Amino acid sequence: MRTFIIKANEAHTRADFKLSDLPGTSGRIDVLCRFLNSAFLLSHGFRKNVRVWLLLYGPPDPPKAIRFEGPELKVRLNPDERSTAKLIMKALKMGEGLREPGKEVEVYPGLYISNRTFEDVIRLTLKNSTLYYLHEEGKPVKDVQFSGNVAFVLGDHKGLDAEDEAFLDGIAERVSVGEKSYLASHVVAYTNILLDSLPSPP
Amino acid sequence: MRTFIIKANEAHTRADFKLSDLPGTSGRIDVLCRFLNSAFLLSHGFRKNVRVWLLLYGPPDPPKAIRFEGPELKVRLNPDERSTAKLIMKALKMGEGLREPGKEVEVYPGLYISNRTFEDVIRLTLKNSTLYYLHEEGKPVKDVQFSGNVAFVLGDHKGLDAEDEAFLDGIAERVSVGEKSYLASHVVAYTNILLDSLPSPP
Repeated sequence: MRTFIIKANEAHTRADFKLSDLPGTSGRIDVLCRFLNSAFLLSHGFRKNVRVWLLLYGPPDPPKAIRFEGPELKVRLNPDERSTAKLIMKALKMGEGLREPGKEVEVYPGLYISNRTFEDVIRLTLKNSTLYYLHEEGKPVKDVQFSGNVAFVLGDHKGLDAEDEAFLDGIAERVSVGEKSYLASHVVAYTNILLDSLPSPP
Repeated sequence: MRTFIIKANEAHTRADFKLSDLPGTSGRIDVLCRFLNSAFLLSHGFRKNVRVWLLLYGPPDPPKAIRFEGPELKVRLNPDERSTAKLIMKALKMGEGLREPGKEVEVYPGLYISNRTFEDVIRLTLKNSTLYYLHEEGKPVKDVQFSGNVAFVLGDHKGLDAEDEAFLDGIAERVSVGEKSYLASHVVAYTNILLDSLPSPP
């Protein structure tokens, strides 16, 4: 199992944005759509061995955690941004009024929303996966010996803040796909293809 | 210099599609938008050493060749699909009524449209680049010794047809990023990151 976690500090936590202007009205939910595309999609197929956590921290009601659970997912994920943004909108609508921190609401089979925090999701992930923080100054990902379930944390276009990084220190090894600063969706596409080439891909 | 060439057999050759439904109305111009994103964009920057040829073969007026020339490009390429589709629309509008096969119309500095064919573009590219055909059954890209200018040909979601493949035989080595069938945008993201890691990246 591969888990990809992205913290999106400005992504809106209510479905108050326009599908016709995602970059300008949603706090960059378009970034999350491309992230899902890279995490799950093959040319003629879908990766069932993937879980994605989108951690939305923008206005007006942070945090919201949206979980896409590959093995259970029954709703179709299309490659284009707009149709994926509609799924996120639907999840945000179902998450309105959620109060309990640990409760998940099922939006569709395999798609859930909750008020879980970044720290909650990291702690949950650590229970059954080795955690890595994808960062340009980390150890080259080609030299890492991956085994078992793996999980990767990424920042959005602004990156993680110092507090988040301090929280990850000691529990997530920093690994890097290269020395440049790449878009999160490109990093996930690269990591997926690299993991596919391992003798026992997670 | 890195050149990425994609042949899109169904992509509309007139700006007759809806930005609000690219997958359903444009012959999958959304695929080309994500291709451009992967070819050019870094997290906080733009790859000036990249050229992209979009070869559109859909209705009603094929072929149309749209060239994005990184070193000269003055128009902003944003990461989202919709804004990139607007650039393609603008190019298609400026290409209406083009008759001469070899003539290019400048849409913006660094962005051109013409009636060039797939074969025209391949022949032109061969003049100053080593050509590779990205195909799942090729030689692993990790084992290829890249040097000088490199160019990569990819098919769209339906792949290249037998005639195109016959044309490429002998002039383009088949190389592969893996054994699965990946989305073109993921292949380009992977290839760019791999090329960045070379001692002398093209």
